[in-house]
Amino acid sequence: MAIPCQPLIGSEKLSMEAGPLSPMAPISQPPVILTQDELKKIAAYKAVDFVQSGMVLGLGTGSTAKHAVDRIADLLHQGKLKNIIGIPTSKKTHQQALSLGIPLSDLDSHPNVDLAIDGADEVDSDLNLVKGRGGSLLREKMIESACKKFVVIVDESKLVPHIGANGAMPVEVVPFCWKFTQERLQEMFGYADCLAKLRRNGDSESGEPFVTDNGNYIVDLFFKKDIGDLKAASDAILRLAGVVEHGMFLGMATTVIVAGEFGVTMKNK
Amino acid sequence: MAIPCQPLIGSEKLSMEAGPLSPMAPISQPPVILTQDELKKIAAYKAVDFVQSGMVLGLGTGSTAKHAVDRIADLLHQGKLKNIIGIPTSKKTHQQALSLGIPLSDLDSHPNVDLAIDGADEVDSDLNLVKGRGGSLLREKMIESACKKFVVIVDESKLVPHIGANGAMPVEVVPFCWKFTQERLQEMFGYADCLAKLRRNGDSESGEPFVTDNGNYIVDLFFKKDIGDLKAASDAILRLAGVVEHGMFLGMATTVIVAGEFGVTMKNK
Repeated sequence: MAIPCQPLIGSEKLSMEAGPLSPMAPISQPPVILTQDELKKIAAYKAVDFVQSGMVLGLGTGSTAKHAVDRIADLLHQGKLKNIIGIPTSKKTHQQALSLGIPLSDLDSHPNVDLAIDGADEVDSDLNLVKGRGGSLLREKMIESACKKFVVIVDESKLVPHIGANGAMPVEVVPFCWKFTQERLQEMFGYADCLAKLRRNGDSESGEPFVTDNGNYIVDLFFKKDIGDLKAASDAILRLAGVVEHGMFLGMATTVIVAGEFGVTMKNK
Repeated sequence: MAIPCQPLIGSEKLSMEAGPLSPMAPISQPPVILTQDELKKIAAYKAVDFVQSGMVLGLGTGSTAKHAVDRIADLLHQGKLKNIIGIPTSKKTHQQALSLGIPLSDLDSHPNVDLAIDGADEVDSDLNLVKGRGGSLLREKMIESACKKFVVIVDESKLVPHIGANGAMPVEVVPFCWKFTQERLQEMFGYADCLAKLRRNGDSESGEPFVTDNGNYIVDLFFKKDIGDLKAASDAILRLAGVVEHGMFLGMATTVIVAGEFGVTMKNK
């Protein structure tokens, strides 16, 4: 169900359309054309409205989540938020939050997370996500499956008609015999004309493999066709020995905030 | 279906009972009381009868599989086997096979394995297994799920009425927030009075965590009650972010060879 939210752009009082996320209804007239990064920032700031003092917070990773972490730090320094404990979803976010003075902990010490805020690479109309193009899918999934609320923040370019429609679906695999695992993944999704490709550092085909925070590799799956039943696909991937985790986050997001050229929409599960 | 096999102990011609593995029918009179290690050796040697020249072979890990690897090397050196390529399931077996002069490769180069021979920690009447008490479950599962035939060799102490009845069911987890994963695993099997315990080096509770060949930890699950539907349990474990693999090998074994005080039984899927 879509719920009303306050306008962030323009001065008119707005109401949100209760329809699917895409296509979005225009809800305000922006004063200027906004860049993608400005849109990300708008979504991020809106998500931080959900944060209350005393919360244990999952801190996302990526260019959109970075804005949310910045904003949380600002509010802490302004005294508008107090007693926040951040649980970073990557080493990178840990560094960012540390440098901003956000008190940090981890899931071992704080297994109950009140709220997580994170970006996504794709969002479908059922609020299923693709995440992990930045490589942090495993820690993100551990933390975001442990939280009461999971607010996803995206610009409108991330809305897709179906999962896998607009780029890679990452799978974290153990380095041991990764080629074998890559081939089995590609075979598994042969019906969707899948290309499975090891992620490497740099653009070169001969570059060193990209290594995750957990010391694993990433095999990116590119589908030419809809993969269909996502839960079945998820289980099939996870059953493959050699796979650690995949980037489909199914049924996890409780709210998705989308910043578009014409305003912000918010959809709740 | 149980199939006939040649007697290894005693001189009488024997026929095998086509019943469940446990309890086993006595099929020969041993000349002496055999040690557990001698029983393991008998099962291992019997399994090596399946090996033919030119095969790509998965080489198992553990005290029983070790005998099979020794036997394969003997037959190679005697010229009774030729053109074998071994795919070791652990660094330890790699070392053993290397020192014995068995030609080695890996799944990346040889994704089609003709036959794997390995031990198991538990075997139920449907030939489902628990493996991984030695810590090599992931590589074993990758290789043994890639093979045409998977022959399991055990002494009769490994036969159980149900999976998890006689010790730990190991789960390989990422080190990141392992306590959190351990707690979620224990909760998941609360209905079976599960105790989840990080495996450590040495007997001490304060010892360093045991680290797998893949740089991960092992959480051992001890069940006081039957966990019921094994496929459902398997999927539930694999869906938990933070889990890499578990030690239940369901529907994978094509043959189980059991050496007991009174002879050898063999059961095919």
